[in-house]
Amino acid sequence: MNQKETEVREPIGKAQRAAQKHQKPVCIWITGLPAAGKSTISIELERRLHALGRHSYVLDGDRLRTGLNRDLGYTHEARSENLRRVAEVAKLMIDAGLIVICAFISPYRDERRFARALLAPGEFIEVFLDVSPQVCEARDPKGNYARARRGEIEGFTGIDGSYERPQSPELRLDTEHLSVDQCVEQILAFLAARVPGQ
Amino acid sequence: MNQKETEVREPIGKAQRAAQKHQKPVCIWITGLPAAGKSTISIELERRLHALGRHSYVLDGDRLRTGLNRDLGYTHEARSENLRRVAEVAKLMIDAGLIVICAFISPYRDERRFARALLAPGEFIEVFLDVSPQVCEARDPKGNYARARRGEIEGFTGIDGSYERPQSPELRLDTEHLSVDQCVEQILAFLAARVPGQ
Repeated sequence: MNQKETEVREPIGKAQRAAQKHQKPVCIWITGLPAAGKSTISIELERRLHALGRHSYVLDGDRLRTGLNRDLGYTHEARSENLRRVAEVAKLMIDAGLIVICAFISPYRDERRFARALLAPGEFIEVFLDVSPQVCEARDPKGNYARARRGEIEGFTGIDGSYERPQSPELRLDTEHLSVDQCVEQILAFLAARVPGQ
Repeated sequence: MNQKETEVREPIGKAQRAAQKHQKPVCIWITGLPAAGKSTISIELERRLHALGRHSYVLDGDRLRTGLNRDLGYTHEARSENLRRVAEVAKLMIDAGLIVICAFISPYRDERRFARALLAPGEFIEVFLDVSPQVCEARDPKGNYARARRGEIEGFTGIDGSYERPQSPELRLDTEHLSVDQCVEQILAFLAARVPGQ
């Protein structure tokens, strides 16, 4: 192997990887209160995309907090770093040609804005699951609202942690009145209308 | 949306994502001294895999240090954290169904062992580019050996930073005497022989 060899080869790029998968890679960023339905909708969205032959992947707290971000706690700073890394991983996966579904409370505008700015225009699709804190607390499938009420979790979004509502998300879904399937249909319809090649 | 809805759907799993791409996801971890040929071989390997219809992605210092790992320096601890995150991202990408090519000096056995342990048996393919420090220093395409000699880089692997040779890598490639194409052929032959579905 000699030095001349390093110069002749053109690397495979983002466009080629996307073309191979017959899709336009995007990040579908699902934000909302705990128990708003982020995980449920992510799972069903990936099922539907898979059935359509799309290559997608879900990034969520369960996957990240037990691996890449296991060194991070829950202070404001640590939560920001958590989302920074999520956004950077989403960027790499989009570069790899995937449709990335990110399901995170992501309560602060600045963090969502950071994720959006990291990607190319049109690649970040913010989906706001809009449902009242009361309904989320009544659902409480993991019992986290109850724990927060007992003072066992500090800074819990929806109890003593604030949530900054998205001002102009690409999609706002009222998961109080829409079914899971209706929410997923709306996301798929958005992709079909706005993202060429979906 | 009601709570019952959360229970009925089976998430798409690793096997389904891999099957959709008609491949067995693995991590090809390329280790070796600076200027051993890691980037060049990665680029050509991805080109060949792409031509074979495989879905792959290269993780290397250029991509990680400017994004996910931009907060890390070059102390021993920071370099370990750099590789820990690389291994975690590789794990996520393998879960997403991709063939991940990691090109990092990764001088320490412990760090390579960590990456291997994170993945399932058979998923980690260690490729050691075995070439003498003298030859690497003579190549020096980025001028880093020269800078290290002038004392401008501290702990530079191959000068004043140690490199622990892999003891039983899946592949050892002598890039001093093999061409880029010969190296890539050997990796592809290994994949074809050992990894079902490649």
